[in-house]
Amino acid sequence: MARVERFLPSEEAADLLELVGDLADNELAPQVAGFEERAEFPREVLRTLGRAGLLGLPYPVEYGGGGQPYEVYLQVLEELARRWLAVAEAVSVHTLSAFPTYAFGTDEQKKRHLPDMLGGELLGAYCLSEPQGGSDAASLTTKATRDGDTYTITGTKAWITHARVADFYNVFCRTGGPGPKGISCVLVDAGTPGLEPQVAERTMGLRSSPVAQVVLDGVRVPAERLVGPEGGGFTIAMSALDSGRLGIAACAVGLAQAALDHASEYAKGRTQFGKPIIEHQGLGFLLADMATQVSAARALTLAAARLRDAGRPFGIEAAKAKLFATDTAMRVTTDAVQVLGGYGYVSEYPVERFMREAKVLQIVEGTNQIQRMVIARSLSRE
Amino acid sequence: MARVERFLPSEEAADLLELVGDLADNELAPQVAGFEERAEFPREVLRTLGRAGLLGLPYPVEYGGGGQPYEVYLQVLEELARRWLAVAEAVSVHTLSAFPTYAFGTDEQKKRHLPDMLGGELLGAYCLSEPQGGSDAASLTTKATRDGDTYTITGTKAWITHARVADFYNVFCRTGGPGPKGISCVLVDAGTPGLEPQVAERTMGLRSSPVAQVVLDGVRVPAERLVGPEGGGFTIAMSALDSGRLGIAACAVGLAQAALDHASEYAKGRTQFGKPIIEHQGLGFLLADMATQVSAARALTLAAARLRDAGRPFGIEAAKAKLFATDTAMRVTTDAVQVLGGYGYVSEYPVERFMREAKVLQIVEGTNQIQRMVIARSLSRE
Amino acid sequence: MARVERFLPSEEAADLLELVGDLADNELAPQVAGFEERAEFPREVLRTLGRAGLLGLPYPVEYGGGGQPYEVYLQVLEELARRWLAVAEAVSVHTLSAFPTYAFGTDEQKKRHLPDMLGGELLGAYCLSEPQGGSDAASLTTKATRDGDTYTITGTKAWITHARVADFYNVFCRTGGPGPKGISCVLVDAGTPGLEPQVAERTMGLRSSPVAQVVLDGVRVPAERLVGPEGGGFTIAMSALDSGRLGIAACAVGLAQAALDHASEYAKGRTQFGKPIIEHQGLGFLLADMATQVSAARALTLAAARLRDAGRPFGIEAAKAKLFATDTAMRVTTDAVQVLGGYGYVSEYPVERFMREAKVLQIVEGTNQIQRMVIARSLSRE
Amino acid sequence: MARVERFLPSEEAADLLELVGDLADNELAPQVAGFEERAEFPREVLRTLGRAGLLGLPYPVEYGGGGQPYEVYLQVLEELARRWLAVAEAVSVHTLSAFPTYAFGTDEQKKRHLPDMLGGELLGAYCLSEPQGGSDAASLTTKATRDGDTYTITGTKAWITHARVADFYNVFCRTGGPGPKGISCVLVDAGTPGLEPQVAERTMGLRSSPVAQVVLDGVRVPAERLVGPEGGGFTIAMSALDSGRLGIAACAVGLAQAALDHASEYAKGRTQFGKPIIEHQGLGFLLADMATQVSAARALTLAAARLRDAGRPFGIEAAKAKLFATDTAMRVTTDAVQVLGGYGYVSEYPVERFMREAKVLQIVEGTNQIQRMVIARSLSRE
Repeated sequence: MARVERFLPSEEAADLLELVGDLADNELAPQVAGFEERAEFPREVLRTLGRAGLLGLPYPVEYGGGGQPYEVYLQVLEELARRWLAVAEAVSVHTLSAFPTYAFGTDEQKKRHLPDMLGGELLGAYCLSEPQGGSDAASLTTKATRDGDTYTITGTKAWITHARVADFYNVFCRTGGPGPKGISCVLVDAGTPGLEPQVAERTMGLRSSPVAQVVLDGVRVPAERLVGPEGGGFTIAMSALDSGRLGIAACAVGLAQAALDHASEYAKGRTQFGKPIIEHQGLGFLLADMATQVSAARALTLAAARLRDAGRPFGIEAAKAKLFATDTAMRVTTDAVQVLGGYGYVSEYPVERFMREAKVLQIVEGTNQIQRMVIARSLSRE
Repeated sequence: MARVERFLPSEEAADLLELVGDLADNELAPQVAGFEERAEFPREVLRTLGRAGLLGLPYPVEYGGGGQPYEVYLQVLEELARRWLAVAEAVSVHTLSAFPTYAFGTDEQKKRHLPDMLGGELLGAYCLSEPQGGSDAASLTTKATRDGDTYTITGTKAWITHARVADFYNVFCRTGGPGPKGISCVLVDAGTPGLEPQVAERTMGLRSSPVAQVVLDGVRVPAERLVGPEGGGFTIAMSALDSGRLGIAACAVGLAQAALDHASEYAKGRTQFGKPIIEHQGLGFLLADMATQVSAARALTLAAARLRDAGRPFGIEAAKAKLFATDTAMRVTTDAVQVLGGYGYVSEYPVERFMREAKVLQIVEGTNQIQRMVIARSLSRE
Repeated sequence: MARVERFLPSEEAADLLELVGDLADNELAPQVAGFEERAEFPREVLRTLGRAGLLGLPYPVEYGGGGQPYEVYLQVLEELARRWLAVAEAVSVHTLSAFPTYAFGTDEQKKRHLPDMLGGELLGAYCLSEPQGGSDAASLTTKATRDGDTYTITGTKAWITHARVADFYNVFCRTGGPGPKGISCVLVDAGTPGLEPQVAERTMGLRSSPVAQVVLDGVRVPAERLVGPEGGGFTIAMSALDSGRLGIAACAVGLAQAALDHASEYAKGRTQFGKPIIEHQGLGFLLADMATQVSAARALTLAAARLRDAGRPFGIEAAKAKLFATDTAMRVTTDAVQVLGGYGYVSEYPVERFMREAKVLQIVEGTNQIQRMVIARSLSRE
Repeated sequence: MARVERFLPSEEAADLLELVGDLADNELAPQVAGFEERAEFPREVLRTLGRAGLLGLPYPVEYGGGGQPYEVYLQVLEELARRWLAVAEAVSVHTLSAFPTYAFGTDEQKKRHLPDMLGGELLGAYCLSEPQGGSDAASLTTKATRDGDTYTITGTKAWITHARVADFYNVFCRTGGPGPKGISCVLVDAGTPGLEPQVAERTMGLRSSPVAQVVLDGVRVPAERLVGPEGGGFTIAMSALDSGRLGIAACAVGLAQAALDHASEYAKGRTQFGKPIIEHQGLGFLLADMATQVSAARALTLAAARLRDAGRPFGIEAAKAKLFATDTAMRVTTDAVQVLGGYGYVSEYPVERFMREAKVLQIVEGTNQIQRMVIARSLSRE
């Protein structure tokens, strides 16, 4: 697959992107269609990525991470998403699942858990949403009762990526009263009795990435698995979401780029009315608009990442990047199908898959309506 | 399913729509998910529609048709599409497949073929597109050579709806020199040796409606099956397309209405942040825009139909209706998934299916780029 | 100016449209630029329209009206707006200003006032908005106190079209407690002491139509000028608005049609890169989209009008038509400037004026946000 | 005016932006309305900017420039455009007018002309477009005949910013045969006999910046005023355009930011239905979308600038930035008027001016259709 022109902050980053491009071409591109068809999770592929050091890129080297700025990490995600969105999303979710421990954990917790998380030995999940309160996280009802050194957790989590395949779950649950102050974050191992991932949802796309409800029925967890202070869970969740939104934005940019790549390629090769269809302005202008939107989405996402890398507030810009990049992906993938015409509508070409996949990005890590709430609120406070 | 407020030209039409609504609720709605899942063509359902008189609505009663104006016929299509797009499209394609015989056939041909066509005994298909010339119909290469009283036809047709299930095919083939003047229309029965429908395409949606290539390998047909004059095929094809575009526009309106119905229903029942999400302006305004677009698409489609019914030129308005209504369906179905959030992305709800189906409507009967060519050309001639 | 293809309900209506087209070409088109430049109200032009019977078209002949259905009246408005938006809007506002008397007045009031109103002797205005409550009409604060047979009215009305030039004002004022039930409608003559129209606003466009605040400072009016029951004013206002929205929608269609006309004309005559620019698909497709939107806006507006003409509920469809047609006018006029390039940006061509005028249509008779509230509410009640 | 959060490459740049913000608040903001009203060119304001070192920012210090990267220069332009678009555009055009001399001139020419150009003593203009060939620059017809050491130039240039006020003009003229290879660039002083700027166009906005035709009638210029090689003019023009597009993109970002600033401010202060209108999601989401688009436009523009600063190809990304940022400015300014409702439509508030100004940005330095041609061509060559 042709290289995207990138502006990278270091030679090392350029080498990393080169390596990722090759790995993605060789390991991801040939397998995606089969796994999506079978709705099978590519656990082995993720192990390969872990061995290549790609499962903990934005974390410090001392804990087994890659020590890369977000600006670079996100471009890696983008390259993965260009070939296999579910794998890129898995990397993003997994990276996110190590975030509470890294940013809010004790030294003890970091030393004990981070190396396995970042090396990819243990795959993580992130349990925030519930069936009744998808967008309204502060109202979650999963209950954790403390009894001596043990929390007993009961409730149902919904839309959990990596349900059934994760080795550990960050479970956000109510340890106190109503509202955001009553929420805590607890790490739960996959095998713990009472934690029961349900059958995976049948989704329109992204089928190789299992999403399911996770029922917690009297799950007992040692109190030392609490991450951050009791009542600090909502802060952790929102803070992780800011970073998670950047990950989704990067996935969206990669997916949109893939759609643009395929559509341009097709439009150069397909002839109608005596010349390649890309030379008819009707389609040429459509492709130009697609290319422009992809560039804008990438620039906005990386600008937000540079704020994060510089230690400056980035949450609002991350919300904008998530909103803009995923709306772009939806539009660009839909238009890419149009460029291919009938060929775009059949599964011999990957473009119809891109369109099915794009939709989920407008929904996860806060629907795009939630992003608009976040942005509007920031404007009203300015 | 709630009745759409309609403005109908007669009491009879109102009764017909009432009947169609009931039939669609009882026969179509309960079966659509299964047939789509199995990618199975609902031949029996179409027989039921035929018995109800719905397979020849806009043709004269004397040939077994329903004698209805297009304004009414299109609203029937819309109601079918609200429950099962593939069935509505089948009715539209079938209705179209009787058009060459009706409008250009000899009295002999009409008497012999129309009653079976319009009564639904014989299901029709329409073979215009080819693998290399989807949009550029005037360049088609399927060859028919006349030898005495027989045409021998060889070539490959692509994107043929009802391939494998049709009883007869309107085959557009080249009987003369290059360009539009060398094209003729020939009726070919399904069983004719050498006519070989290929395996059905695996499409993103509309799976219960088989689409496939049809290979014609030395197919011999009596010359009396020629419809219209030799060399008149392109005129027939274009003229049928004008009507076919109205049919697709109506299908698009019905599909968009279905998406709006489901999204509104969900938004009234789902509570977030303390009230039904439809009462949050963010979603409320989105739904208002969806409703407005659906009404505009319906009004434009029916305005074009009334021109046709009055015997006035309607081709340009039909192109506008096809363009506008299908773009509307794409946007509205995509937004409907958004309204449902995660629930919109899973196959328990029909909304993700609507979105997959909408895309094909922007492609068939002339891609929306072709519609824009038609409309732009009319502006430059005015 | 070329005739728009119309589908009219009667021969008489066709004749009327023909006459209106000629009158608009001869009386409106040559004068618009000068009056707009001078920001001068064309009182004489309105008298001409009055003499031609165009100031009371949708009212019964017995009161001096034209006895035309709204479907026809709106197409007349459209033709006026194609040449001079301010005049069309004046006709719409004036027609609206007779509505309370016609629909809610006593027989006495109708006989006394309607003939002069509908004949155009008296020009009317409509005073609903206030500086603090543009969109929230139910909260209006202009106070009317009854003392025997007299109301004394004090308050400030804002954004009043025909302020300074109207002969009578429908003043909506609070005769009772807070909320919609405390509002009444009173007819006030222009010369009444204490009624003081302020200096006209300097607006971006539509400058020949004066808009200003109207201060009422102890204005005394005989109680017999109350229209409808005391407390019935909000019902009257909302009901008039439903019709007023249709008028604005028709103005928007006419304005958008004018922009399309000029842009097409220019694009046929202007050559770049060796051919007329309309034959470059980039511009051709843009014009095709503009034409499609204009047709959709017209169809939606007339569909709502036919509901009104048939005595069926039409308020929601009127809101959709107002929203859609004015958004269309904004988009189409902006794109028309683009088609002309630099020539579109200078006042030698009328296109830049169209763009400046279009904006106001998205704001008056309820901003398009208010329309969305109305539509969303209807969806949530269905 | 509130500071925009910026990510600047150096402390020096941060100081510069601070200074520019203050200067713009104090010198530009209070004067813009008056100059626009009077359609008067603010020559003195430009001298002030020249003295502050803002008229040659991206050129080397050795020639009197500011030695700033484009990334910084463009953010300066943006801040100027937030207060007074015509001034920002003047700076952009002037900066562009020094480009041919700087990039293609002889050492002699650079030493002689650049210091006065970059210090702002001499104001420059750029004469490329002609009445018949706005977008198709390669077909220009202004003729320069060489006779010994003198060129005699005859022709008409159109849409020339700074016509009538410039001290020198870069005139692109045909010294050879047809097509791009026959074009040269010649510097012509304002006072040269035969060079006659015409009366300024009456434009919809940006009125303090004169735009006019420039007639050249036998203008005699010493051959040493040729910039670059004979026949090299088209290359110079296209290369200057790449940079000029970045300038326009930055102007568009600044204008859109200004519209967002005013709309947010208004929406926080205006109360309807019991709370500030920004807290109604209908408007809040609109403002969120505006803010997102502004951020994306800025990020895309600065990303292209960083490519230029790094000496990498940036023309395609500049075209994307120009297209995206100016489309954004058009949309955001139009929506800003909507946020203010009636108040947005009157000249007491600057928002209606923003909307009138935005349109020209979609047209200058290559219409947005030309940008799409450039981008589409790059896709078809990839």
